[in-house]
Amino acid sequence: MNTASPMTGAEPSVTFRSLAELRAACFDLPEGDSAAAETVMARQAELTKPPGSLGRLEEIVAWLAKWGGNPPRLDRGDILVFVGNHGVTAQGVSPFPATVTAQMVANFSAGGAAINQLAEAVSARLRVIPLDLDKPTADFTHDLAMDEASFLAAVAAGYRAVRPGADLVCLGEMGIGNTTAAAAVAAALFGGDGAQWAGRGTGVDDRGLARKRAAIDKALARHAGVMGDPLLIAAALGGRELAAILGATLAARHRKIPVLLDGFVCTAAAAPLAKLRRDALDHTQAAHVSAEAAHRTLLEKLKLQPLLDLGMRLGEASGAALAIPILKAAVACHSGMATFGEAGVSGKL
Amino acid sequence: MNTASPMTGAEPSVTFRSLAELRAACFDLPEGDSAAAETVMARQAELTKPPGSLGRLEEIVAWLAKWGGNPPRLDRGDILVFVGNHGVTAQGVSPFPATVTAQMVANFSAGGAAINQLAEAVSARLRVIPLDLDKPTADFTHDLAMDEASFLAAVAAGYRAVRPGADLVCLGEMGIGNTTAAAAVAAALFGGDGAQWAGRGTGVDDRGLARKRAAIDKALARHAGVMGDPLLIAAALGGRELAAILGATLAARHRKIPVLLDGFVCTAAAAPLAKLRRDALDHTQAAHVSAEAAHRTLLEKLKLQPLLDLGMRLGEASGAALAIPILKAAVACHSGMATFGEAGVSGKL
Repeated sequence: MNTASPMTGAEPSVTFRSLAELRAACFDLPEGDSAAAETVMARQAELTKPPGSLGRLEEIVAWLAKWGGNPPRLDRGDILVFVGNHGVTAQGVSPFPATVTAQMVANFSAGGAAINQLAEAVSARLRVIPLDLDKPTADFTHDLAMDEASFLAAVAAGYRAVRPGADLVCLGEMGIGNTTAAAAVAAALFGGDGAQWAGRGTGVDDRGLARKRAAIDKALARHAGVMGDPLLIAAALGGRELAAILGATLAARHRKIPVLLDGFVCTAAAAPLAKLRRDALDHTQAAHVSAEAAHRTLLEKLKLQPLLDLGMRLGEASGAALAIPILKAAVACHSGMATFGEAGVSGKL
Repeated sequence: MNTASPMTGAEPSVTFRSLAELRAACFDLPEGDSAAAETVMARQAELTKPPGSLGRLEEIVAWLAKWGGNPPRLDRGDILVFVGNHGVTAQGVSPFPATVTAQMVANFSAGGAAINQLAEAVSARLRVIPLDLDKPTADFTHDLAMDEASFLAAVAAGYRAVRPGADLVCLGEMGIGNTTAAAAVAAALFGGDGAQWAGRGTGVDDRGLARKRAAIDKALARHAGVMGDPLLIAAALGGRELAAILGATLAARHRKIPVLLDGFVCTAAAAPLAKLRRDALDHTQAAHVSAEAAHRTLLEKLKLQPLLDLGMRLGEASGAALAIPILKAAVACHSGMATFGEAGVSGKL
């Protein structure tokens, strides 16, 4: 990893010159601050509530302290939405034309998409990062989706998008065809086939779903040679926005910034990191479980427990954004509540 | 129902002079505005997202429009926390002394409880309403928890607490011993015994749990004569704060204000209404499912699908408050998103 201007407050111009360099960066991960988490849990036990009665809110604060420092702050929440185009759309895997990808970028810019409203509602900063939309990845039923240089460039773009001073990063994506790429990546990482991992995405009909499954199976056969290598899988079967999410997840870990992962595509994008190093996603939470059925399977494989389960399947970091108020509420309770001693409330008999 | 100053903006001084009068009010319920809900769903289909991809967020907006008007507003969200004391604490059903109930009211007043932080975090108005804390209900293993007059007074106190101009009402409770009352009410309404409905509440140990189960079974046997009548069940086995929640839920329905129910005690408190009239809780949503296991069972009986599942078991309307940002996000998406036509985004192929 080549960092031209590291940690100056500006976004450093990180590049990865080879897969080997990226692989090394994926193994070189800082640990979280376990002592900070323990301090949080000790305070939780003193607050005026039955022990453990705030459930995951208590765990969330400990996790935030472990990965972002204690006391946890959530003043600078960033939502990063990476956007890419996919050659596999030629296989008829989506009910929407590939032109919708660029049209949605215009919609993001105009403030008309769901994530614009959600970012405003939760007071987070939204940044949409289109990645070479005029150069779709190759149709991975025939070729590698990306060559090494293209893949590394997308990973680095994601890495650079993480603002060093952020308190929290929400990751999401948009790209017509990308649930097919995500399903192919998940199948390649964890086994199984198109029938197991493909869902209806934005809403394909039965025939479209059959084409999607077939495309995944064809791609898995075509790229059998990469199956042992999570990064090669991401390059061969993923997409630029998935590669950028991998890079952003890695950057957040290196900078010790907690991450909220969004739905199926986002989780599949980060999954290669966990295949390389089991604890690589410890600084992340699954913000929600999508209605795309394979997401639940994938979260189980990754031992991630979603915060929300609201039948959403939009992407755009929409589920991740929706979890921000849960985190803020958890921090507010932890920071603002009185202890038993302060409030003069009797403890257990 | 005797309404001295109805709908003047001030809280009307409703009283119920008899169980028969209350029962009549429980049957006399307005319908929701189905046309408003349909208008919302028609717009959802035009917004720049795959149809249905915002999942429950789309349903929430339709429900808000049906019960609170279209466009839905959430500017005046009220959190009402009713507080009561319980004679059944004499049976050793809680690990906390009954004096904690009043101590927690002082903590609410001082701003030190979880719900204080949550109400501020979600910009809702919190009101805590203690109900005759110096007069605990009778120990219902021996006597009726409340006589008719006491029960009706508590119901009316809850009814009056609902501000006519509110956009949303979150209901919650606090009261040492009240998960025992809630379990007894649930068992009386839906069948089953202490073993099925009693949980650890604020954290009783195994011996305390055995005492709790025994107290419920004893109460169910003692009050076998009321089992056919949901309101008599609420009076015999409930508590003042549960009765007030019943009254507040009824008031919100009469005034067409959407309600978020909190956890097990809150849901058990409102449940008699659904036993009287199957659609009586249509204006409510279960904000969350509690870690108190019987809550999931109770929600299934009432066909309520919780919005959140975060292992919380605090009460105080904490789960209900936490769901407010979900509702606000749903409304923000619906109100602010562009349509396919406005954004120039292509629809399905």
